[in-house]
Amino acid sequence: MHHRLPSLPVLDWGRGYDRETLAADALAAAIVTVMLIPQSLAYALLAGLPPEVGLYASIAPLLVYAVFGSSRVLAVGPVAVVSLMTAAAIAPHAAAGSPAYWEAAMALALLSGGMLLAFGLLRLGFLANFLSHPVISGFISASALVITASQLKTLLGVRAEGETLPALLASIAGQLPQANAATLAVGGGAVAFLLWTRARLQPLLLRLGVAPRAAGMLAKAGPVLAIVVTTALAWAFDLQRSGVKVVGQIPQGLSPLTWPRFDPALWRELLAPALLISAVGFVESVSVGHTLAARRRERIEPDQELVALGASNLSAAVTGGFPVTGGFARSVVNADAGARTPFAGVLTAAGIAGASLLLTPALFHLPQATLAATIVVAVLSLVDLKMLRDTWAYSRADFVAATATMAATLLAGVEQGLVAGIAVSLGLHLYRTSRPHIAVVGLVPGTEHFRNVLRHDVRVSPRVLGLRVDESLYFANARALEDAVNREVASRPELRHVVLQCTAVNDIDASALESLEAVMERLQAGGIALHLSEVKGPVMDRLRKTAFLRHLTGKVFLSQYEAVAALAPELTKAAPPPPGAAGAAFPTAAFPARPY
Amino acid sequence: MHHRLPSLPVLDWGRGYDRETLAADALAAAIVTVMLIPQSLAYALLAGLPPEVGLYASIAPLLVYAVFGSSRVLAVGPVAVVSLMTAAAIAPHAAAGSPAYWEAAMALALLSGGMLLAFGLLRLGFLANFLSHPVISGFISASALVITASQLKTLLGVRAEGETLPALLASIAGQLPQANAATLAVGGGAVAFLLWTRARLQPLLLRLGVAPRAAGMLAKAGPVLAIVVTTALAWAFDLQRSGVKVVGQIPQGLSPLTWPRFDPALWRELLAPALLISAVGFVESVSVGHTLAARRRERIEPDQELVALGASNLSAAVTGGFPVTGGFARSVVNADAGARTPFAGVLTAAGIAGASLLLTPALFHLPQATLAATIVVAVLSLVDLKMLRDTWAYSRADFVAATATMAATLLAGVEQGLVAGIAVSLGLHLYRTSRPHIAVVGLVPGTEHFRNVLRHDVRVSPRVLGLRVDESLYFANARALEDAVNREVASRPELRHVVLQCTAVNDIDASALESLEAVMERLQAGGIALHLSEVKGPVMDRLRKTAFLRHLTGKVFLSQYEAVAALAPELTKAAPPPPGAAGAAFPTAAFPARPY
Repeated sequence: MHHRLPSLPVLDWGRGYDRETLAADALAAAIVTVMLIPQSLAYALLAGLPPEVGLYASIAPLLVYAVFGSSRVLAVGPVAVVSLMTAAAIAPHAAAGSPAYWEAAMALALLSGGMLLAFGLLRLGFLANFLSHPVISGFISASALVITASQLKTLLGVRAEGETLPALLASIAGQLPQANAATLAVGGGAVAFLLWTRARLQPLLLRLGVAPRAAGMLAKAGPVLAIVVTTALAWAFDLQRSGVKVVGQIPQGLSPLTWPRFDPALWRELLAPALLISAVGFVESVSVGHTLAARRRERIEPDQELVALGASNLSAAVTGGFPVTGGFARSVVNADAGARTPFAGVLTAAGIAGASLLLTPALFHLPQATLAATIVVAVLSLVDLKMLRDTWAYSRADFVAATATMAATLLAGVEQGLVAGIAVSLGLHLYRTSRPHIAVVGLVPGTEHFRNVLRHDVRVSPRVLGLRVDESLYFANARALEDAVNREVASRPELRHVVLQCTAVNDIDASALESLEAVMERLQAGGIALHLSEVKGPVMDRLRKTAFLRHLTGKVFLSQYEAVAALAPELTKAAPPPPGAAGAAFPTAAFPARPY
Repeated sequence: MHHRLPSLPVLDWGRGYDRETLAADALAAAIVTVMLIPQSLAYALLAGLPPEVGLYASIAPLLVYAVFGSSRVLAVGPVAVVSLMTAAAIAPHAAAGSPAYWEAAMALALLSGGMLLAFGLLRLGFLANFLSHPVISGFISASALVITASQLKTLLGVRAEGETLPALLASIAGQLPQANAATLAVGGGAVAFLLWTRARLQPLLLRLGVAPRAAGMLAKAGPVLAIVVTTALAWAFDLQRSGVKVVGQIPQGLSPLTWPRFDPALWRELLAPALLISAVGFVESVSVGHTLAARRRERIEPDQELVALGASNLSAAVTGGFPVTGGFARSVVNADAGARTPFAGVLTAAGIAGASLLLTPALFHLPQATLAATIVVAVLSLVDLKMLRDTWAYSRADFVAATATMAATLLAGVEQGLVAGIAVSLGLHLYRTSRPHIAVVGLVPGTEHFRNVLRHDVRVSPRVLGLRVDESLYFANARALEDAVNREVASRPELRHVVLQCTAVNDIDASALESLEAVMERLQAGGIALHLSEVKGPVMDRLRKTAFLRHLTGKVFLSQYEAVAALAPELTKAAPPPPGAAGAAFPTAAFPARPY
């Protein structure tokens, strides 16, 4: 366990910083900046915000993450799923594009940042583990589909409403007759071009003799090329007159210093969405961070990441931004481009700041359909339906959790989807542990091992019943053990001993202890002794304090083998117990054949 | 498992019914009727309903339970905790004493009955297991304290409001100067008398030569004696003029046929309380039923009980009653008085019906303070603070769940208390399983057993690390395993093999499988092979389908001993493996010393 307090990783990498490292970081920063400008604009529009807000959210958070982050290459900023969640959270409270909407976005970043920071300082990063892989994967796939549907309206040049997939598609279908041909041409062309660069550009460049790494980088520049070309076309042919919506006037300048107005009623409404956004942002960021750290033989510290993401979001809130987190594509590009330290993030922030100051007039004629095309192509790669097939084959419970998450996200909304996924996965886990696997075990001849009588050829005695409970005993399954013992005992008239093999019992809570007492009393009334074997150290420590152990009608054996050797020695005669078995930790004195 | 459909237990016991059984049932019914009349009146008042509603709720439900119930002696009717929950559920929606209030009580019985019936038909009785013993115990103790506080106002003859303990006590304290001396004398006298009969009457009767069983029965008649005496006093001295509130006019006659008016808005609000009332009623009833059945070597069927309680509550709803369940005290009295079949319940219902028809005028002068005294003395015996001491000694988690339930019930209300208890107990269970106990294990010399190196004197090899995970691997603890392996591996430079002993691993879900793959890849990069041992049958069945097992860098061994015998034979030399160990279910061929 790592119990040091949240630290300042900048102190580690800052010391040995030299000119060579700077050159590597600067190159990576230049490439990430070029990639981040269109993404920032696009995700701000996806969140229902003015495009420049995307740029603001890509400056201060990068600087702050560079100071606090434990990953050397993670690039934070607006990402698709969190932007969609932002839109879903604010839509009920303010009209898209209004100042109140923007202010609510800042409030959301502030609340989310505060939560992440608090969780980090309280070392509660483990809570993110309750978002299981299938739930996260199903949620991201479904969110990507919702995002794609929401961008269809921009690609078609129509107005459409709705937060769920059916509502969006129905709304768009109703508007189809009003689709704008020029917009569709620009948007459709951009989608086709981006899909082509993604699949074909890199091999083409390789064949043209470009070095592999450079070819990979250039292929990632597709969105920038699409923006340059469509902006030029829109300007040259004055496509605005043909109904193509463009980005328009973007205020020139750096992020403003802001402070979202305290509005208790609104903030209370935003608490739950902020928590969900924090959870998704953290899980996504940490999983990117782990993946990249493993490649570089480094480690990231989840609780430190919470602090860094929290501080990044707080900085977004006070510089006119909206919720941010670590993005997968941009972090991979950053790593591949050779970034060595978080200083690459500082340089990227400087690049975005420069673009905010100088480049925004050039973006006036940028068609919104081009940005929609970059979003669609980016998020479609997040749709992972193979995961569904894999989980179906491996675990029905995980499959149910994943499909429930997807269905709820598509049909009810992103927040509902995530909550449903968590509830279903926890519910299924509890359901499974509430019906434990209980096996009757027998001795594998010639060994000291015991195995399920239904699966192995083993030796059993009519006088001794060995039961192995394959689950910790707690309130939800206490009754199941009682039922199983009653059932097995009822069919064995000669029975004198029941031995519970506790190999898999990692805990016995107070409810289960009461059930064990009830089981023991019922067996005692039938002249049957209850024994335990292979009780784990921590469980034994607690049982020692109980009346149950003092009144136990049988013994506690170190192993199931010793229990059977004492209670049904005829089973073990073929292979006498090895010497040294007397070195047992618990008493194993010979047990009287008929205790009653 | 019992998979027969819900049945009609009346067909079993009805057949062999004879005159002798009738005599036993009739005696028990007479005694229970005498006990039930004051209780029914008192619990109706506690629920905020007119006293006659308590009588109505003690007629039809008894008849219906006799037909469907699987317990031979359970007595259903109004009980203290469910009456308190009824009051808490309806108070926000109607004024106590109004027709709307009574109608809401019937609607609550209807909804609760429908839910219980549906759960029974769907065989969902196991859901009640999620109410752990400490939560139920804490909830009942706290409810008893709230009930006691709520009755103080009747004992003092003041008006007081509030649903939580502090609110009730503050309200009563403010009204103390208005306390009515005559009421306090009647109520205080009744409490003192009832406590005396409870503690002393039985020994006194025994000394006077009364037979033990009769003495026990007579001691239970204390409340009836208190009612007779105080009613006579109130009539003789016209205590109503001194400010003593009496029960007053009770409509004479049988239960009316009713049907609660369908009010969608109200019913929706009552759904959650109805669910909680169903849960508490079912758990209380089943635990009484189990206890009494065990004494008589009978069994009760939880799903059949759901059906019976559901039908009983539906019958209460259509005969002017309110939610009912099986009561502890009256069921014990019924059993002790010699009831043999549920026909005793039919006779009790007839007795209550007779009382409704004939006896109600005699109850006009019954002081309400006497009923409050019977409630207080009955519920104080439900307060079980010893349980807190026991759970503190045995399990901190259970103690926290019990105290959280008590605190929330006392400070926030009964519904909040129960929900908090369920949430806390599930949360603590998940928290515990999310931080599994992981032990480094070594060979107990001279045996085939492996134990924790920190607790036992065992043999280990610097080249082989044995790790035993004491928990099923699932999403919440997948990361903890990764961290533990990383930590242990980092401190062992000579390490070549990691063997995960899976004795306690009852499940590996999709998230944990991904973590195992990540662990294996990281170990592989360090030239370390990952092996598994003692994998359970059901887990192995599923692993066989996975790429993880196909790519496993090590082997799957039947036992940890075989793994160590193959990988670090020097540890096992002192005691060669017994013959027959080759009869393994999984391949255990000699493993190459250095696989890379």
